[in-house]
Amino acid sequence: MRIGFIGLGGMGKGMAGNLIKAGHEVLVWNRSQQAVQEMVSQGAKAASEPADAFDAEVVVSMLADDASTRAVILDSGALDRARAGAIHLSMATLSVAFVAELIERHAKAGVDYISAPVFGRTDVAVAGKLNIVVAGPQAAVDKVQPLLDAMGQTTWPLGEDPLRANIVKIAGNFMLASAIETMGEASALTKSYGVEPADLLNILTNTLFAAPAYKNYGAMIAEQRFEPAAFKLTLGLKDVGLALSAGQAKNVPLPFGSVLRDNLLEAVAQGEGHLDWSALGGRALKRSGQA
Amino acid sequence: MRIGFIGLGGMGKGMAGNLIKAGHEVLVWNRSQQAVQEMVSQGAKAASEPADAFDAEVVVSMLADDASTRAVILDSGALDRARAGAIHLSMATLSVAFVAELIERHAKAGVDYISAPVFGRTDVAVAGKLNIVVAGPQAAVDKVQPLLDAMGQTTWPLGEDPLRANIVKIAGNFMLASAIETMGEASALTKSYGVEPADLLNILTNTLFAAPAYKNYGAMIAEQRFEPAAFKLTLGLKDVGLALSAGQAKNVPLPFGSVLRDNLLEAVAQGEGHLDWSALGGRALKRSGQA
Amino acid sequence: MRIGFIGLGGMGKGMAGNLIKAGHEVLVWNRSQQAVQEMVSQGAKAASEPADAFDAEVVVSMLADDASTRAVILDSGALDRARAGAIHLSMATLSVAFVAELIERHAKAGVDYISAPVFGRTDVAVAGKLNIVVAGPQAAVDKVQPLLDAMGQTTWPLGEDPLRANIVKIAGNFMLASAIETMGEASALTKSYGVEPADLLNILTNTLFAAPAYKNYGAMIAEQRFEPAAFKLTLGLKDVGLALSAGQAKNVPLPFGSVLRDNLLEAVAQGEGHLDWSALGGRALKRSGQA
Amino acid sequence: MRIGFIGLGGMGKGMAGNLIKAGHEVLVWNRSQQAVQEMVSQGAKAASEPADAFDAEVVVSMLADDASTRAVILDSGALDRARAGAIHLSMATLSVAFVAELIERHAKAGVDYISAPVFGRTDVAVAGKLNIVVAGPQAAVDKVQPLLDAMGQTTWPLGEDPLRANIVKIAGNFMLASAIETMGEASALTKSYGVEPADLLNILTNTLFAAPAYKNYGAMIAEQRFEPAAFKLTLGLKDVGLALSAGQAKNVPLPFGSVLRDNLLEAVAQGEGHLDWSALGGRALKRSGQA
Repeated sequence: MRIGFIGLGGMGKGMAGNLIKAGHEVLVWNRSQQAVQEMVSQGAKAASEPADAFDAEVVVSMLADDASTRAVILDSGALDRARAGAIHLSMATLSVAFVAELIERHAKAGVDYISAPVFGRTDVAVAGKLNIVVAGPQAAVDKVQPLLDAMGQTTWPLGEDPLRANIVKIAGNFMLASAIETMGEASALTKSYGVEPADLLNILTNTLFAAPAYKNYGAMIAEQRFEPAAFKLTLGLKDVGLALSAGQAKNVPLPFGSVLRDNLLEAVAQGEGHLDWSALGGRALKRSGQA
Repeated sequence: MRIGFIGLGGMGKGMAGNLIKAGHEVLVWNRSQQAVQEMVSQGAKAASEPADAFDAEVVVSMLADDASTRAVILDSGALDRARAGAIHLSMATLSVAFVAELIERHAKAGVDYISAPVFGRTDVAVAGKLNIVVAGPQAAVDKVQPLLDAMGQTTWPLGEDPLRANIVKIAGNFMLASAIETMGEASALTKSYGVEPADLLNILTNTLFAAPAYKNYGAMIAEQRFEPAAFKLTLGLKDVGLALSAGQAKNVPLPFGSVLRDNLLEAVAQGEGHLDWSALGGRALKRSGQA
Repeated sequence: MRIGFIGLGGMGKGMAGNLIKAGHEVLVWNRSQQAVQEMVSQGAKAASEPADAFDAEVVVSMLADDASTRAVILDSGALDRARAGAIHLSMATLSVAFVAELIERHAKAGVDYISAPVFGRTDVAVAGKLNIVVAGPQAAVDKVQPLLDAMGQTTWPLGEDPLRANIVKIAGNFMLASAIETMGEASALTKSYGVEPADLLNILTNTLFAAPAYKNYGAMIAEQRFEPAAFKLTLGLKDVGLALSAGQAKNVPLPFGSVLRDNLLEAVAQGEGHLDWSALGGRALKRSGQA
Repeated sequence: MRIGFIGLGGMGKGMAGNLIKAGHEVLVWNRSQQAVQEMVSQGAKAASEPADAFDAEVVVSMLADDASTRAVILDSGALDRARAGAIHLSMATLSVAFVAELIERHAKAGVDYISAPVFGRTDVAVAGKLNIVVAGPQAAVDKVQPLLDAMGQTTWPLGEDPLRANIVKIAGNFMLASAIETMGEASALTKSYGVEPADLLNILTNTLFAAPAYKNYGAMIAEQRFEPAAFKLTLGLKDVGLALSAGQAKNVPLPFGSVLRDNLLEAVAQGEGHLDWSALGGRALKRSGQA
């Protein structure tokens, strides 16, 4: 299939690479040229502007946030110049308010919009083992299924309204942040009685909490090792904000979400914004004077 | 081995049953006689008072809380009449303040005190598959190891200070409560966008959160089915209180713990104290007017 | 002085009325014409569009929020057509992000921008007894001082950066919301021991808390009388949001603010958005099953 | 009247002094003898043990907390040796659980128990200007009214159940803590936009919040001056705990109370337990990296 691919950050490069490996013709665009050259060396073609990527059957986008997606997809005029009948497979984590706007704009442009955000970090993207939640027009989803299969280990279909995939992704990231905070508080509690976080988390993440989220972040909290950042704390603050604002629009209070936001803000204020967001799990130790 | 066993609630019966099956001579005591007769029919002998159970090499206790443990072990005079050199294997979930007092009292009575609280609900106790965290004098722990093996699938040793096992159990229950609240909030969020809790939790508990804690409680939250109560919400409130008071004694704030306490109190005030504590995971839906 | 006045809600009418009484020539504009006619009957002249109001030495605006201010002042083109050297005395409660944008836009348009938000409800505005916090270019503030004197009992100068007045207003409203929540929680606590909120609040608001904020809102909470709404709960939610977003921009966590937001959202979800925001002070009684 | 007076801390000395000045015969007891000698030099007589003080028509107690009251009144045997028909005017801030126990013990001892906790710090006690909330048997209250008049500027009667006065005092201290936290958060917010806490609080405490609680604590927060401690932060933590435990007994969640507890614990963990409890109002500045 002829695919445009926009956004070659850590995640995007792994995903685009797997599309190339699967035999697709991939036309890539990225703001910085270095990543473009990397992908070209793997077999991609370079697009000179975002609109070129939209001159394809399917365009995949994996940009950082609302602002960059707005700039590259809408403000650049790329969407307006999309090929008739194109499908936009939007895989970034975006706010519900902005996705609602995107849906409207794509409808006007005659382009099918699919939300397909992913769970998994860079290494998982490279391995083609992402979990992908997808929602959009069924025929369009059927058409991009081979692409989803190339990038992920499992596709989780959520119906035709793209917002549904979007909100599940936001809820999932909220759950991750909660797990991190939970392990941080539990660790501070046991440490005050002489039990090291590593000892606590070894037990719990091999029994009741034997799940990837707890094992991965638990290991970082056990060692209080928050660098290098696979996902920066400031991005975690952004994502918790997506949950809170999505909740606010529907009058859904999220008291854990509020605590997370406050603790992440405090972390940024204390100079930890550049750390991995698992550093949230180190705040309780600091607050209690134990680190 | 000749074992005294005190406390035949749902958990205690399963645990004592496995000791009998393993070939030990078990002398049981319980406040209500019905449970005693059940165990007698399985091969136990009935003790006429708690002190009789303390006339054994090892006495296992599995009582409901601080108050019942105080009444049965201390106020009844049972500990004072313990056989010299006896070992008390205390498996209930108790406050750190009370365990500190128990340690002191046992030292005076010349009885070894071991804390060995368990993770697992009634069915797991019956199956002999509990996860047991244990801390106490090493020689004593070595001696009771066959008993722990009969009751649990894994023993997690935590050193010689009994408080260490105690605080890990308290931290574990706090983590469970956090997981329940987290799923409740995430469910309320996605439901407000039309995604049913069951659809959200199906995805998350089969991927990032594929762990027993999330699967078990997630299923109950997905169905909003909180009866019958395997572990009552009022007991959950008590256990979160154990975490908060343990934290307070060491100046460790637990902001998630505070939210949990407030939400559990609200649930009790709204008449939900008799439900399973997973009903905590239904509060967010109610608060947001969706249930 | 020749004054344009934009925004004739409950507050605006009282304020414009006092300018007329003070002998100024007031040209009013409002989206709905009824309020315009009221003011004309008091001696104002009617402007046919917002831009007309900007053809004055000083234009006063008192609109509901960011969105209406953006629509009327910016999007209508009014600011772009302002008289050279005009002063815009902006008295609404606006977000810091939007005020920052307004400052920039006014600088480009060659119009002095003064922030002068007010403390006081409708009756206080009518009586000309508002407390006004003001910040902006000193010469411009000096020039509008007679107008501030006509509308308020006291002007509190805060320097030349308009954002300073803005943030003080936001902080003040946050403090009011905190006082309401505080009285609500205290009332729920004492009522559970048989002490009516009215008895508690009678004592406290005549001693340690003998201040207008506590007396006014305390009376409403004592009677659990939240209608008619002098300031709607949904507006309170908006204002607490202004504090939270202002804090977020500077990495300042506001844990009380987070609780306020969650409780206000819950109130809206429970159908109380149309009540006076003092209804926030009734939530604790409801949550604890006492109302 | 012949009065026993137990507890000569900063508050007690001022209160006992005013009873002496009013012409009463005051028999004082205190753990440390220095304060006893001070009062003797003002005209008091020294009691050699607590029980001596209970050999009077009225015994006033003003001890630090539950523990010291239990030790001095109950465990010492003083109450058991009280004169028949005596009245105990208990003015300390005690937990509702302990007051319930005291009521029962006094009934058995044939001693009337009156709760009469006070609002006001040391200087107010010396000046005889305390606000006193009182509840107990009416005839007994009538009899001690001259004593209350000597110690306070106003007596606020709350009926015959002593717990009613007790819970109002607890609620009042909770409201003070909330006011301190509120000013602290508001100050951190405005400071991040360049407005000093002193400038914010000058405006608010002279307008909407022109009340003693806000003026007194506001001045300390404005200057970030938290020494010397008129009321230590650790005592504030104790008092917030009294509110939370009183609420818990009746299923009343207090979300602001939970935040206060967490922030006070954090302050103690950070080494601020010895400061005045207004130091709670400095936490937000520290958390946001501004102090």
